[in-house]
Amino acid sequence: MIRRRGTLFVVSAPSGAGKTTLCAEVRRLIPELAYSVSVTTRAPRPSEIDGTHFSFVTEKQFDELLNAGAFAEQALVHGHRYGTRAATLEAALNAGTDILLDIDTQGAATLRKKYAEAVLIFIVAPSLAELEQRLRERRSDAAGEIARRLARAREEVAMWRSYDYLIVNRDVKDAVEQLAAVITAERCRTARLALRIPDLEDKN
Amino acid sequence: MIRRRGTLFVVSAPSGAGKTTLCAEVRRLIPELAYSVSVTTRAPRPSEIDGTHFSFVTEKQFDELLNAGAFAEQALVHGHRYGTRAATLEAALNAGTDILLDIDTQGAATLRKKYAEAVLIFIVAPSLAELEQRLRERRSDAAGEIARRLARAREEVAMWRSYDYLIVNRDVKDAVEQLAAVITAERCRTARLALRIPDLEDKN
Repeated sequence: MIRRRGTLFVVSAPSGAGKTTLCAEVRRLIPELAYSVSVTTRAPRPSEIDGTHFSFVTEKQFDELLNAGAFAEQALVHGHRYGTRAATLEAALNAGTDILLDIDTQGAATLRKKYAEAVLIFIVAPSLAELEQRLRERRSDAAGEIARRLARAREEVAMWRSYDYLIVNRDVKDAVEQLAAVITAERCRTARLALRIPDLEDKN
Repeated sequence: MIRRRGTLFVVSAPSGAGKTTLCAEVRRLIPELAYSVSVTTRAPRPSEIDGTHFSFVTEKQFDELLNAGAFAEQALVHGHRYGTRAATLEAALNAGTDILLDIDTQGAATLRKKYAEAVLIFIVAPSLAELEQRLRERRSDAAGEIARRLARAREEVAMWRSYDYLIVNRDVKDAVEQLAAVITAERCRTARLALRIPDLEDKN
C-alpha cells in the first residue's frame, strides 16, 4: 500500500495563454483531480457559472471571508479581488486528493510559502505577439481591458523562473498532454510517497 | 527559442519488474529518445540482438574498454559485467538529446554522482510474490538463477528511496504511461531550461 498526502497543482498564466481551457481539459482527462473554485468580486462573464467557474461574491462578502481568515491566498488582479478558500485545500490534502488551482502569480507566490511541496506550473503563449492576438480574439474584453491585460502579461511572463514547470501553449493538445504528464509524474515522485512501502520492503 | 541540454533518464529495477518491456514501449511512444546500449560480458538470450539490446563482448574486450576509460559506469551483476559507454552519453547530452539508460542499481548510483541532473526512475513489481511468479514464468532462467535473482531483488527493492521516481508495474499500459509522463514532465521543468527565453521575455 503506497500512501501519500494530496498535492497542490497550482497553474498560473498571463491572460490569453489558454490556461482556462487547459485546466478544463486536464480535469476531463484526470477526473479524480479536485478543483479549487476561486472566490472573486469580478462580474461573471456570460459563459461562467457561479460555484463552478468561480464563486462570485460582493466586496462586502469578500471582506467578511478575509476577516474570518478563510483565505489561503488572496490578491487584487485587474482591479478585482480573488481568493482561495483554505478549508478546500486542507480537506483535499488531508484526504490524499490532488487538487488543481487556477490562480494568479501573486496567489501562487503566497501558496508556495505556505505549501513548500506545492507544484507550480506556468503556462505561456508562444510569444507576446500571439498573446495579443488571442486577447483581441476574445470578444468579451474591451480595448482598454486588452491593453491593461497585455501590459500585465509582459510583467508576468518574466516570472516563469519561480515556477517548477513551464508549458508553452503552441498547440492545445500538446499542452494538455504536458500538463497531465506533470500531474502523473509528480504522483510517482519518491519524495511524495509515504515513508513506508510495507509490501515492497517485506522480507518475509 | 527554448534551448536545453539533453537529460539522462536512468531506469533500474529488480529482475522481473518488467523494466525491459517498459523501456521498449516508451521508446516506441517517444521515438526521438536516444537509447544507451549497455556493454556486457553475459551471453545473449535467444531473442537478443547484438548492438540493439546489448553490445556483447568478451571479458578481454570489456577489460580493454575499461582500461581505456570508455565507461561512465560499470558493475558486476549476477556474475556478469555491464558497462555504459561515456562517449554515447556525452554525445547525446551535448546534442540536446534525451537518452534512456536501462542499468542496474550500482550503475545508477555511479551515474548520479557524475550527472547530478540525471533523472532516476525505479520500477517495481506490485509485490515480491508477484516478482517471484514473473521470474518463474520467464522460461529462459534456470531455477538456481531465479533464486539468485530473487535474493538480489529483495535487496534492491529497499533502494527505491534513492531514486527520483517510483513506478509500480501493476499494469503495463499504466506503467508505460507513467514512464512517458516522467520524461514529458521533466522536459517542462524550468530548472532544465536554458537561462534565456528571448522570445517570451522580449519587451519590444
